[in-house]
Amino acid sequence: MLFFTQCFGAVLDLIHLRFQHYKAKRVFSAAGQLVCVVNPTHSLKYAPTRCAAAQASTEQGTLPPCHHHEAVHDSQLVPCTCPLFSCPWEGHLEVVVSHLRQTHRINILQGAEIVFLATDMHLPAPTDWIIMHSCLGHQFLLVLRKQEKYEGHPQFFATMMLIGTPTQANNFTYRLELNRNQRRLKWEATPRSILECVDSVISDGDCLVLNTSLAQLFSDNGSLAIGIAITTSKVHSSEAEM
Amino acid sequence: MLFFTQCFGAVLDLIHLRFQHYKAKRVFSAAGQLVCVVNPTHSLKYAPTRCAAAQASTEQGTLPPCHHHEAVHDSQLVPCTCPLFSCPWEGHLEVVVSHLRQTHRINILQGAEIVFLATDMHLPAPTDWIIMHSCLGHQFLLVLRKQEKYEGHPQFFATMMLIGTPTQANNFTYRLELNRNQRRLKWEATPRSILECVDSVISDGDCLVLNTSLAQLFSDNGSLAIGIAITTSKVHSSEAEM
Repeated sequence: MLFFTQCFGAVLDLIHLRFQHYKAKRVFSAAGQLVCVVNPTHSLKYAPTRCAAAQASTEQGTLPPCHHHEAVHDSQLVPCTCPLFSCPWEGHLEVVVSHLRQTHRINILQGAEIVFLATDMHLPAPTDWIIMHSCLGHQFLLVLRKQEKYEGHPQFFATMMLIGTPTQANNFTYRLELNRNQRRLKWEATPRSILECVDSVISDGDCLVLNTSLAQLFSDNGSLAIGIAITTSKVHSSEAEM
Repeated sequence: MLFFTQCFGAVLDLIHLRFQHYKAKRVFSAAGQLVCVVNPTHSLKYAPTRCAAAQASTEQGTLPPCHHHEAVHDSQLVPCTCPLFSCPWEGHLEVVVSHLRQTHRINILQGAEIVFLATDMHLPAPTDWIIMHSCLGHQFLLVLRKQEKYEGHPQFFATMMLIGTPTQANNFTYRLELNRNQRRLKWEATPRSILECVDSVISDGDCLVLNTSLAQLFSDNGSLAIGIAITTSKVHSSEAEM
């Protein structure tokens, strides 16, 4: 009996996801755009703890993820950059993607332009919506975070980080776009490197910031559709061929 | 002696304004765009007082500016819509522009695309930067407001209101654009009618909202340049010919 109840629940979930998928497609109405439904994850750690952990790891000789524009040599180990968990893993930059996929179950999507559909925007802060995006020969991490910077006033922060060095990140431009109900909000910037702590990018406010009221204006039935596009910012870039 | 000191001060101010004008032109680098330097005005009234005053005026039989999508007939009187002062004036919608120019000294600019350069962004809240914009046969009021919605955390709110009815406002789309330091933020929406209280638009958060940190990222030496463009949202509009 329990088995049948669970099966029925799973079928309902699938129908619900499919419905959300079509709604997001209708919102953006661009042919060929991939829509990815991203479910929230309640964040298990807070910014100060993470940066303190990073500080501690510096003393042990590994690279701190909170340092800005730090040069990384191939031989250096980087700590786990997953924004959700305090993870003791460390490894080379090239294996960060497989670690995030395998250990933290973060999905990866292909395509120059995708639609990120974050569900259950009403959930209390802190909550994260995370995917990886593979594009132009590189992998990017998209983080949407609901956080109470000022107590009792949750805000949404969205940013894109390159899983690569700051020098590589300088070759790209990312665009996040919200479009609903005769309103449009676009944010364009150079992605930060994942070696710069995502928590510090968000606390600096150097990202797309939405108040709850604005997030509600752009949401449809509790889901927020964000159009994502990545382009190379330098045409003749040696990094683009890497 | 005092006269010469004042003259010297005035010349220095002119040089400073000219310098800011060129900086804004450099930021937007679009030929033919008009740059308007807008100085701040310390707001002399607060939102609750104004809306209470509007409520009181309703009881006296005039049109409340805080009502949403209220139909206005030509014969009806509207109260002064200046967001800066509690003003006892009332008159017909067609003479609001001349009242705002003559009594409240609000500048008016011509042109489809202009650059609004708000100076002295560091001044404490509440502060307003205001101009009128004449375009496509209509007049618009651009309001940039620094306000502490949450105590101790000032934010910037920018919106454009049509000096006309909500039905006329529906025929237009306005765009506000910030562009500096490899970052770009664009807000596009239908302007609200000036008959809907600007205070309530801002408290609803249905406008371009900037945290202090984001405003600093887009500012240059204490001034914020906002590119403004207005277009008609309906091609075959009967309103466009008015």
